[in-house]
Amino acid sequence: MSGSPTAEPPAQLGFIGLGAMGEPMAGRLLAAGFDVCGTNRNQARGERLRAQGLRWCSTPREVAESADIVITMLSDDQALRSVALADGGLLAGLRAGATYIDMSTVSPQCSAEVAEAVAGRGASFLEAPVSGSVPQAQSGSLTIMVAGDRGAFERSKAVLGAMGSNVAYLGERGRALMMKLAINLSVAAQMIAFSEGLLLACAHGIPQKQAVDLLCNSAIASPMLRSRGPLTIERQPQPWFALRLMHKDLALALAQAREHDLSMPLSALAHELFSAARAHGHSDEDMVAIYDLLAELAGGAPGTGSSV
Amino acid sequence: MSGSPTAEPPAQLGFIGLGAMGEPMAGRLLAAGFDVCGTNRNQARGERLRAQGLRWCSTPREVAESADIVITMLSDDQALRSVALADGGLLAGLRAGATYIDMSTVSPQCSAEVAEAVAGRGASFLEAPVSGSVPQAQSGSLTIMVAGDRGAFERSKAVLGAMGSNVAYLGERGRALMMKLAINLSVAAQMIAFSEGLLLACAHGIPQKQAVDLLCNSAIASPMLRSRGPLTIERQPQPWFALRLMHKDLALALAQAREHDLSMPLSALAHELFSAARAHGHSDEDMVAIYDLLAELAGGAPGTGSSV
Amino acid sequence: MSGSPTAEPPAQLGFIGLGAMGEPMAGRLLAAGFDVCGTNRNQARGERLRAQGLRWCSTPREVAESADIVITMLSDDQALRSVALADGGLLAGLRAGATYIDMSTVSPQCSAEVAEAVAGRGASFLEAPVSGSVPQAQSGSLTIMVAGDRGAFERSKAVLGAMGSNVAYLGERGRALMMKLAINLSVAAQMIAFSEGLLLACAHGIPQKQAVDLLCNSAIASPMLRSRGPLTIERQPQPWFALRLMHKDLALALAQAREHDLSMPLSALAHELFSAARAHGHSDEDMVAIYDLLAELAGGAPGTGSSV
Amino acid sequence: MSGSPTAEPPAQLGFIGLGAMGEPMAGRLLAAGFDVCGTNRNQARGERLRAQGLRWCSTPREVAESADIVITMLSDDQALRSVALADGGLLAGLRAGATYIDMSTVSPQCSAEVAEAVAGRGASFLEAPVSGSVPQAQSGSLTIMVAGDRGAFERSKAVLGAMGSNVAYLGERGRALMMKLAINLSVAAQMIAFSEGLLLACAHGIPQKQAVDLLCNSAIASPMLRSRGPLTIERQPQPWFALRLMHKDLALALAQAREHDLSMPLSALAHELFSAARAHGHSDEDMVAIYDLLAELAGGAPGTGSSV
Repeated sequence: MSGSPTAEPPAQLGFIGLGAMGEPMAGRLLAAGFDVCGTNRNQARGERLRAQGLRWCSTPREVAESADIVITMLSDDQALRSVALADGGLLAGLRAGATYIDMSTVSPQCSAEVAEAVAGRGASFLEAPVSGSVPQAQSGSLTIMVAGDRGAFERSKAVLGAMGSNVAYLGERGRALMMKLAINLSVAAQMIAFSEGLLLACAHGIPQKQAVDLLCNSAIASPMLRSRGPLTIERQPQPWFALRLMHKDLALALAQAREHDLSMPLSALAHELFSAARAHGHSDEDMVAIYDLLAELAGGAPGTGSSV
Repeated sequence: MSGSPTAEPPAQLGFIGLGAMGEPMAGRLLAAGFDVCGTNRNQARGERLRAQGLRWCSTPREVAESADIVITMLSDDQALRSVALADGGLLAGLRAGATYIDMSTVSPQCSAEVAEAVAGRGASFLEAPVSGSVPQAQSGSLTIMVAGDRGAFERSKAVLGAMGSNVAYLGERGRALMMKLAINLSVAAQMIAFSEGLLLACAHGIPQKQAVDLLCNSAIASPMLRSRGPLTIERQPQPWFALRLMHKDLALALAQAREHDLSMPLSALAHELFSAARAHGHSDEDMVAIYDLLAELAGGAPGTGSSV
Repeated sequence: MSGSPTAEPPAQLGFIGLGAMGEPMAGRLLAAGFDVCGTNRNQARGERLRAQGLRWCSTPREVAESADIVITMLSDDQALRSVALADGGLLAGLRAGATYIDMSTVSPQCSAEVAEAVAGRGASFLEAPVSGSVPQAQSGSLTIMVAGDRGAFERSKAVLGAMGSNVAYLGERGRALMMKLAINLSVAAQMIAFSEGLLLACAHGIPQKQAVDLLCNSAIASPMLRSRGPLTIERQPQPWFALRLMHKDLALALAQAREHDLSMPLSALAHELFSAARAHGHSDEDMVAIYDLLAELAGGAPGTGSSV
Repeated sequence: MSGSPTAEPPAQLGFIGLGAMGEPMAGRLLAAGFDVCGTNRNQARGERLRAQGLRWCSTPREVAESADIVITMLSDDQALRSVALADGGLLAGLRAGATYIDMSTVSPQCSAEVAEAVAGRGASFLEAPVSGSVPQAQSGSLTIMVAGDRGAFERSKAVLGAMGSNVAYLGERGRALMMKLAINLSVAAQMIAFSEGLLLACAHGIPQKQAVDLLCNSAIASPMLRSRGPLTIERQPQPWFALRLMHKDLALALAQAREHDLSMPLSALAHELFSAARAHGHSDEDMVAIYDLLAELAGGAPGTGSSV
């Protein structure tokens, strides 16, 4: 990044969590010319990135020790705690003056714990959850919501800009996670309503493919539905966003709503449908599998995703 | 309608129902060079169209008497019955061999009654409900779902193509209305989920405008939400789609679902929230006012549409 | 009934519909000393009543021709229409000056049609739906809600009093059916909430029998739950109230609510769960089978009714 | 506690939390001849009990120091933590060999913390939440669900039997609280369904009093509804069970359900309606005020509780 106005030397980046989202996000950083080291619980996932220039580290601590800006992209509170807070974890290696950006969608409580620990190391913390799924991560067109230390945000703009086309600063810590949950409420509800409508159309003899095409080209066709709608007919090989993670996000949002006595009846019902989907064995599938749950409620519609 | 499509004289069109949607749709036909006569209960609404070349008729019957293709765009069953079936209505003037296209969203029962009466006159019937709102009607980019007589559909393609950019033929009568209802289920649910998320964000101190901007640029931003989301802050002067009409569509969809023992929990809850919105006086507002109902559930959030 | 204050000769009663409810109700009338003739679609069901003195007729018309007070207890609109309004049905035989009491739970629309036809015969009409199930019918302890002609009600008090311990006159026609639907909303919701609580207790290791016992002896133990709760463990041989009939009643209530823009979110959700129960094959089981649907939502809990 | 139940000296009881429920419960113990000392945050509430023989203590610790069996009846986690776990609280005074019975409805997490601390003092712990409200507490007819140490349960039977007519031992700790939550799910749902039915009846012109009478004498009339139903017309001066506490219990139950991926759609919706009731200012009213929320959803029905 030679063009930097302050003439700073290029930052060394660290990236921990190279899963369905993390891998393409780190790939975008490498493609943008950043020097990136990283690690992942499952070592195999890092292979492709190493071919693109990623320097492999054996532990989160090792990543932190050598990075100016450390990024984590993990699946939930437990993973974040284990990577960041555990003995010998990321925090143990974080350098004073460094910036740590957590891009996971986790509970505000967990994020606050991590933030406090980061402050204790003399480093800066940003929460920066993303909106968008694997395709947006691959094309660098994620929406990234950022909250926390303003200076750290300014210093990280170029890095974040390599991963997202829409990077918004929301102010005090907690707000970015809240905004992310607000978006995910709609993702869940949109997927359920789409499924109900699709099943209604199929019940009246409209071929599933035609119905999906019409729904995906109508006024309701969000980018999420455009990519997920066709998956009700044939699934992608790997889940983009595990159904259990959406279930978790709904629970987080409802817990936050409760603190404000905010009634969210639709989201609460969506949460219960995701609970049933988990009980029916769809936890680790992509969250498009909520369609299967609704088809099962309908007694198992012919031509549903569940029979594919 | 002689055999050669190219040698045909231009068809005379009739358009009845020049309201929020019908006016720009008829305008598109005039702009495309069609010869259009028409009428409307409220005569004032036809003024602008007359300036664009519309020939005014005093009754639906008079429109039908002079048209090869008659189009209606009305708000509900009652309006359609009154225009089409009443003594001295459209049916009384419909010519044998003519085509009658109803683009309203009405109940399958009412549509079937009209279709039967049309057949009795020796004319053809198409149901052709649309997806999209006022902006799409103005730009001729509606999605038009068509069902009924295949030959009549072929003869009407150019006419429909002047109003919509996506014209799909679905086969036997009833299917287009069903598809339309399937889409509207998602419109309702998307608007509610958007509102819940927006209120959650605002409750955590995020300015409403920033939250709306982020939601409308995220993975959930359907064309519908992109146009309706900002209206939670400041309303348009005229409603595009009255809340009571969405309430009606949800009821129609649920009635159809019931015939198939199809469980649609999210849509059923959406219907009840729209019932409450009507009880709170929002019937004749644009359906974006469902946001106000959710804000009222939350005890009346500051900065909501209801306080504008 | 020799004690009659007006010294009227004892009335001849007719009873049509001798099913799960009608049979014990007619039995109570016979036990009270009334002279009862009757008929039923399924002739076998009348055998026990004939042994108690019922005079068998071959058709509803024949029943009506010989009765001062005719009672019907049928399952739904279709059955009532077929018995009362069809050519050669009850109406064709109804005597001027007679009283016709329909104790079925049917739609207000259907009841109104019948009432009009009754008036056309110069007879009086009462709607008199009941609350209570088979055990209450057997013991004559039903709650009977009556609406319609006040004089006819006064003349029928002794007859109704033989079947119910709580007979209430509600005024103009329609109100008794409405009150019955209001009760049934609670029956449905109580059964669902009981099921959710029971499944929660079982999930935490509490034996199902102990949990049922505690629930059925707590503050929530309505007469309905006291009789239905134990059936989640072991079913009765014959359904008391078919699940599809409860589904129908929920739909009737929701349709009525809609006319008043009355939001009934809990009842609407209950309706959707009953839809799913029908799709899962529980239509003709007792409505306690809604428990099975909830257990199925939970992935098929061990020890549930569905596995018995 | 020597071996022979008959030769034991009468146990000294301690009771902390003399609120709407605790006061009559302690009164039952005094009436049964037990020697009871106690305390309460609000001293005024102890006056009547002192007149019945209660020995007043100034702190929870002082109560614990002089009691063989200590009972708490508190409103929520926070109150329990403050009374039991705070410096100089109950635990600080609890004697080795004593039994501590918590009859509050609190979260399993909080109860587990307290249980662990009790074990650390060499004392026994029982969780013993109750079903029933103020009238049942006054008449000693509560249902008491007990879990924890079996020996402690045997030693406490006489004490518990003075407060409840139905005392059930459920085994390992956690189960009694779970059973209590399972019951409260039904209390909440029953109250909501009752309200929806009542509003439907009133919308059709049935006088509210007549509708309440019929509902409270029908198959759905649980003891809870018999006492709460009439309160929709005229409220008792003091709440029996604050609406916010029911809201809390629903949240606890849903959190437990989530751990088992147990879908509880009706209870989840009930929770959201209670959230809205809190947002509308009904937190500290009796939970019958959920009726007011539903009336408000209906646009403010005439003759509702909210207008009393």
